[in-house]
Amino acid sequence: VTKPLKIAVAGLGTVGAGTIKLLFDHADMISARCGRNIVCTAVAARNRAKDRGVSMTEQQWFDDPVTMAAQADADVIVELIGGSSGAAKAVCETAIAHGRHVVTANKALLAVHGNDLARLAEDAGVTLAYEASVAGGIPIIKALREGLVGNKISALSGILNGTCNYILTTMRETGRDFSDVLAEAQQLGYAEADPSFDIDGVDAAHKLTILSSLAFGHKLDFAAVKSEGIRHISAEDIRLAGELGYRIKLLGIARSTEHGIEQRVYPCMVPLASPIAQVEGVFNAVEVVGDYVGRSVYEGRGAGAGPTASAVVADLVDIALGRSSPTFGIPATKMKPAVFADPGKHLGAYYVRLMVRDKPGVLADVTAALRDENVSIESVIQRSRAPDGVVPLVMTLHETEEANVTRALARIEELETVTEPPRLIRIEGV
Amino acid sequence: VTKPLKIAVAGLGTVGAGTIKLLFDHADMISARCGRNIVCTAVAARNRAKDRGVSMTEQQWFDDPVTMAAQADADVIVELIGGSSGAAKAVCETAIAHGRHVVTANKALLAVHGNDLARLAEDAGVTLAYEASVAGGIPIIKALREGLVGNKISALSGILNGTCNYILTTMRETGRDFSDVLAEAQQLGYAEADPSFDIDGVDAAHKLTILSSLAFGHKLDFAAVKSEGIRHISAEDIRLAGELGYRIKLLGIARSTEHGIEQRVYPCMVPLASPIAQVEGVFNAVEVVGDYVGRSVYEGRGAGAGPTASAVVADLVDIALGRSSPTFGIPATKMKPAVFADPGKHLGAYYVRLMVRDKPGVLADVTAALRDENVSIESVIQRSRAPDGVVPLVMTLHETEEANVTRALARIEELETVTEPPRLIRIEGV
Repeated sequence: VTKPLKIAVAGLGTVGAGTIKLLFDHADMISARCGRNIVCTAVAARNRAKDRGVSMTEQQWFDDPVTMAAQADADVIVELIGGSSGAAKAVCETAIAHGRHVVTANKALLAVHGNDLARLAEDAGVTLAYEASVAGGIPIIKALREGLVGNKISALSGILNGTCNYILTTMRETGRDFSDVLAEAQQLGYAEADPSFDIDGVDAAHKLTILSSLAFGHKLDFAAVKSEGIRHISAEDIRLAGELGYRIKLLGIARSTEHGIEQRVYPCMVPLASPIAQVEGVFNAVEVVGDYVGRSVYEGRGAGAGPTASAVVADLVDIALGRSSPTFGIPATKMKPAVFADPGKHLGAYYVRLMVRDKPGVLADVTAALRDENVSIESVIQRSRAPDGVVPLVMTLHETEEANVTRALARIEELETVTEPPRLIRIEGV
Repeated sequence: VTKPLKIAVAGLGTVGAGTIKLLFDHADMISARCGRNIVCTAVAARNRAKDRGVSMTEQQWFDDPVTMAAQADADVIVELIGGSSGAAKAVCETAIAHGRHVVTANKALLAVHGNDLARLAEDAGVTLAYEASVAGGIPIIKALREGLVGNKISALSGILNGTCNYILTTMRETGRDFSDVLAEAQQLGYAEADPSFDIDGVDAAHKLTILSSLAFGHKLDFAAVKSEGIRHISAEDIRLAGELGYRIKLLGIARSTEHGIEQRVYPCMVPLASPIAQVEGVFNAVEVVGDYVGRSVYEGRGAGAGPTASAVVADLVDIALGRSSPTFGIPATKMKPAVFADPGKHLGAYYVRLMVRDKPGVLADVTAALRDENVSIESVIQRSRAPDGVVPLVMTLHETEEANVTRALARIEELETVTEPPRLIRIEGV
């Protein structure tokens, strides 16, 4: 009989409690699948009295998770504290230094310190596993690193943040404004009290950093992700997107181009008929294009106790069965810094919304600025007249380099008849 | 330096040649990801002279694949011959008997002999890997067996046959008849000269047999799959499905119910808004419902040299890295026969199309038969009058046990005013 795999859990929020519950509920099934038991021997959390919906009388309790990482009777430390530094980082480093495997759901930590942690783990001969860090229960790390291992990946794009997708979906379904829907999402618990990590694209950028390294084999470089959130998306933009045959989604996109790797997060318009347009509410999805496999899509719940626990347990079973891989697909010592593409070289189509005074000559001035920067217009929608004489002027632009559009919009913003900064939304997947 | 992993390939059709090409094209990348090279040392095929688009001068040639399985200088035998018995089976058995790992794309072989082969491989301490056998390049075997390992699966359903999906998609897009579209698919190479394995649901049933065992942990039992193909789907059914808000898809469905496991393949109507309805043409998709992860969906190309080679190479990399699992999720010795549900106990909604003489009293007779079997009608569509006085009468039925509907339709078929056997299409995912 093989010895049980002993785990210690740092952080007993909903995911920590959910993981312990899953291991308890499905103990027999997991034992049959691993050939050994997985038992939780220790936990670390501040509040011992709190009811977490699962019995935790068998475990050794630690107040300090770093002490637990050093001293627990455990083969694996499961880090579910969160945050890109502080206790989470110390727990992982301490666990590795003591020769223990680490399972974490912490995308921020990996995006910022993943190179160093992978190096430490590989030097120590332990596993650093993180399936739960991206797209919740969808086994996208395993799919990229193992399932598609034979492919040169050319691009991946994903709905990586459920909060933003919920807000954008609800805005579309109800016609309401961003701030209104955000407030409701906060009341419902779908958005944090301080929502900026989600709605400004930071969380998606953390996840994209991980996926991009896995796909292309370069060092993780969170600082090189150019990201934009969804605060500026108006009800009008959502409505116009529908009219033009698109849906607005916050996508994380990593792409290999002739100019280098593009690694970006931004809200964009995707064709209604594309699989990713159909992914609504709190669901996540990732589309991957590989040279042999072609396009494949992975969809599921991106967050929550159940899906995240499912991913944590998948990592634990890999460890229990002795299945391991280089952390980010190739050994950390072999990962090189990426050559990133200049964002201005991005080749794409665009949606532009201007707010203009309804005076003769406006359209002539705007189109002249675009022409001068070699940007060609695909369609124009002139909205009905507003009471104050300011009307939206909406254009879609043919595929061109982003730098050209940026220059044209800077000129347009200077026009006396243009009353607000132009709004640009990229069009993807056409 | 770790020694290379040596492989020998039996069967050099498009998939065999594609696999060798992939290993050659991406040798450096694969070596970086495995920490060792994967080299093809031997091949077996009848025709040595044929141009397969890839150089095969380095390999030892065998005319007989079984001899190769016994004698080649190889750690792994890749079986790409196909067929549920004969050479393919002998190759796998011989390889295992000689202590070699086996990678196969052969769903028919596994569906019929998978229990025995898994037992042999596990007794011999070698891997029997088969990612390529189901859904081409989609890593669905890995997702089910590893990614979702912590979940009790309640149901899975999939578009598992690209030929059928291509035919159904084309029928919908063009309004043409089944036989017409099939003939075209044969000309285009999307359907075989003898298409019965695909269009009668046999291929999908093979694949479902494998997925069902992985999901529920029971012995493979191909004979217990109740399957139905797409020959009887008419252009009229496709059109009416659209009118009712559905698309017709051939699905393989495995489900755990209070009466036992349902394991069925049939064409069915799925709501237009469901992810699976959007999967068109030669694409495959599998939806899995687990108790912790919730619903997740996997989509990609289901066949072809590239996607299949991608899956074969994923298995080879697992072997190169020493990653292994029980063949079907739990050890073969622990797999028990499933308790299968009586198909008559299936609880679902239904679409029924009758061809009836346009006489007074028809609807009264039909609805009386349904009432007598406790089947309640959700909607009725009476089509416009036909020249010969025979008109379609279409109904959708509320959720009920299938046996009730079967009995009612048997009575309806006896009616003098009903001119053809009633057509029943199950409605799924409502």
